[in-house]
Amino acid sequence: LSIIALLTDFGTSDWFTGETKGVLFGIAPNVHIVDITHQIAPGDIRSGAFALKASYKSFPLQTIFCVPIDPDTSGSCTAIAIQSDRYTFVGPDNGVLSWAVEDEHILSIVKLTDIRFFRNPLSMTFRGRDIFAPVAAHLSEGVSIKALGPILMGYKHLPVPVPHVTGDTVSGEILYIDRFGNIITNITKELLSKNSSFNFHSSGINQVLPLASTYDSVEQGKAMIYAGSTGFIEIGIHSGSAAKEFRIKCGDTVDFTAL
Amino acid sequence: LSIIALLTDFGTSDWFTGETKGVLFGIAPNVHIVDITHQIAPGDIRSGAFALKASYKSFPLQTIFCVPIDPDTSGSCTAIAIQSDRYTFVGPDNGVLSWAVEDEHILSIVKLTDIRFFRNPLSMTFRGRDIFAPVAAHLSEGVSIKALGPILMGYKHLPVPVPHVTGDTVSGEILYIDRFGNIITNITKELLSKNSSFNFHSSGINQVLPLASTYDSVEQGKAMIYAGSTGFIEIGIHSGSAAKEFRIKCGDTVDFTAL
Amino acid sequence: LSIIALLTDFGTSDWFTGETKGVLFGIAPNVHIVDITHQIAPGDIRSGAFALKASYKSFPLQTIFCVPIDPDTSGSCTAIAIQSDRYTFVGPDNGVLSWAVEDEHILSIVKLTDIRFFRNPLSMTFRGRDIFAPVAAHLSEGVSIKALGPILMGYKHLPVPVPHVTGDTVSGEILYIDRFGNIITNITKELLSKNSSFNFHSSGINQVLPLASTYDSVEQGKAMIYAGSTGFIEIGIHSGSAAKEFRIKCGDTVDFTAL
Repeated sequence: LSIIALLTDFGTSDWFTGETKGVLFGIAPNVHIVDITHQIAPGDIRSGAFALKASYKSFPLQTIFCVPIDPDTSGSCTAIAIQSDRYTFVGPDNGVLSWAVEDEHILSIVKLTDIRFFRNPLSMTFRGRDIFAPVAAHLSEGVSIKALGPILMGYKHLPVPVPHVTGDTVSGEILYIDRFGNIITNITKELLSKNSSFNFHSSGINQVLPLASTYDSVEQGKAMIYAGSTGFIEIGIHSGSAAKEFRIKCGDTVDFTAL
Repeated sequence: LSIIALLTDFGTSDWFTGETKGVLFGIAPNVHIVDITHQIAPGDIRSGAFALKASYKSFPLQTIFCVPIDPDTSGSCTAIAIQSDRYTFVGPDNGVLSWAVEDEHILSIVKLTDIRFFRNPLSMTFRGRDIFAPVAAHLSEGVSIKALGPILMGYKHLPVPVPHVTGDTVSGEILYIDRFGNIITNITKELLSKNSSFNFHSSGINQVLPLASTYDSVEQGKAMIYAGSTGFIEIGIHSGSAAKEFRIKCGDTVDFTAL
Repeated sequence: LSIIALLTDFGTSDWFTGETKGVLFGIAPNVHIVDITHQIAPGDIRSGAFALKASYKSFPLQTIFCVPIDPDTSGSCTAIAIQSDRYTFVGPDNGVLSWAVEDEHILSIVKLTDIRFFRNPLSMTFRGRDIFAPVAAHLSEGVSIKALGPILMGYKHLPVPVPHVTGDTVSGEILYIDRFGNIITNITKELLSKNSSFNFHSSGINQVLPLASTYDSVEQGKAMIYAGSTGFIEIGIHSGSAAKEFRIKCGDTVDFTAL
């Protein structure tokens, strides 16, 4: 049994996602389709790359990830598929696949060129429906990745912001802010020492926060640092929004100094 | 294998859509359910009709479309099913099915009256859950459309705004604005000449725009005219929102003059 | 064939819901997953409890409801499963299951302790993905509820606001406001007499409303009282939002006096 997981910026208010599923079922009538999310901001490759990296390992082996976050929508950005020993990824070669794929043992990268596996007719503005979805569906039906087009030697890497350690201070940046207002940094939990509290510093912010294990380790309304479910250090508020409290946004720099 | 595609104004914040799927699976345990969208504005028959027309042909043959966009919710609007040689449509007879169905070769139209195919008990205010969904599920299980109620000779047509050509000018109106701010007109691509640029005119707007094939045919932030994925002419901005830029809304009139 | 129905506060803009489905399919590859909603306000146990009570009976027998609305996210709130003669419910023991379960004939209540049925590794902040979803998936695969952990003798009840009848007046409170602006009270339809109109009173409101059966029993823009699809009395406006018109919110008290 085959799973296709969709991660897009199509939104849910128009018919784009539903129509894309119609195309998938037309080719792969028995596939399970899972929506990771469709609410990546239009063309926000970085948030798409992070959402994919954060979620893909929870899916069963052999899942096919279809990620048409594709601000260029045309031939100026190559359409690709990447197969690892565990998963397959389909999307534009603009870096949106790269943060997930760099953790994988890659077997093949191909350029999607064989129009037998595309929708017919082919529009010029909706590659999600017309190229990426049909290709994902054909892969789930057993088409070999090598049938899709010529082998590529590499793919575009989106730069990964790297955290830095200087003495007792770890510096990084904000990768993502979730629905609950939790602030996800690029700092893995291994980089933070086991101290019980840290000075948290960012633009206009200078505050001592405890390192906690769960939200209710602190009182309601209080902030804390913790290792989030993605493996990265987060800043959160018990029953509140840290993003609102600290007025912080993606890309902002932060540092934590052990106390 | 059977597909039921749902297109509603139920939203996704309450339980209405999920509960409706519970009803569907209770009757048709092996059906695939596809959400086209649930975010049509409450009672917006015209947007629902357009979303159905724009998307339905991408679904596999024999798909059953269940479209309970039903501002009257009661006996004052007949509940109907329409079967063509390719698809089946279930919904209120208020025009929401009409823009799709008029492209189809219709075999049967019936009035839904046989309560054996309705939910029991039957509420007075939720025909989506209690009539349209159960009927769609019974159809997917093989019940004949003619078992559902008496044959009708016609269905309600929602007026289709017709574009006009006068010399070098094509006049039409705005049918839909999508998540990306792309403006979809009622002008089919065949009506526009092959000129490379047009004067775009609407209330307070008078601007020369290029006819492009893809968003990145123009610079980021620049507007263009193009044939959209629905087959209609659209106005869009590369990596931007044309609807915001031009402050245009559904129903506004537009014209394009070849230059 | 097995159904797992999800009712969460995960939202749909991040990957939380999709990732949870990846976990479910990894354990139960043939399950049908139904989203009731993911847009309960973060940690709003009362709205979650109402949405579950309002919807669960429309699902097929044996459906497993997974309801990780879990503001405490940690060991301070017991994780439980409750099996009735019709359904199974999985979630935190904070009352979110209680309004549905109190209508059921309960067979077993267990504390979820056996980590063989949890995700490995186990995060400290995402019990929906790591405990509730895997347990629901194992139940759908045939694991006995008694294998999950020790039997409990009870579960936490969320207080149910009780309506009061005094002479010709029924007093209650607002339980939920839906997408359409319909106001759902805690007053069951049996409590209201069959009079044709009532004086509706709430903070700053004193208005005579008809008791109607469907929205179009009154003119467009006019308000009415009716028995909603959940079995409770609602206040609605034909083609409008009663919540906006009356500026009413969840928890507000209301009374209706027969005229």
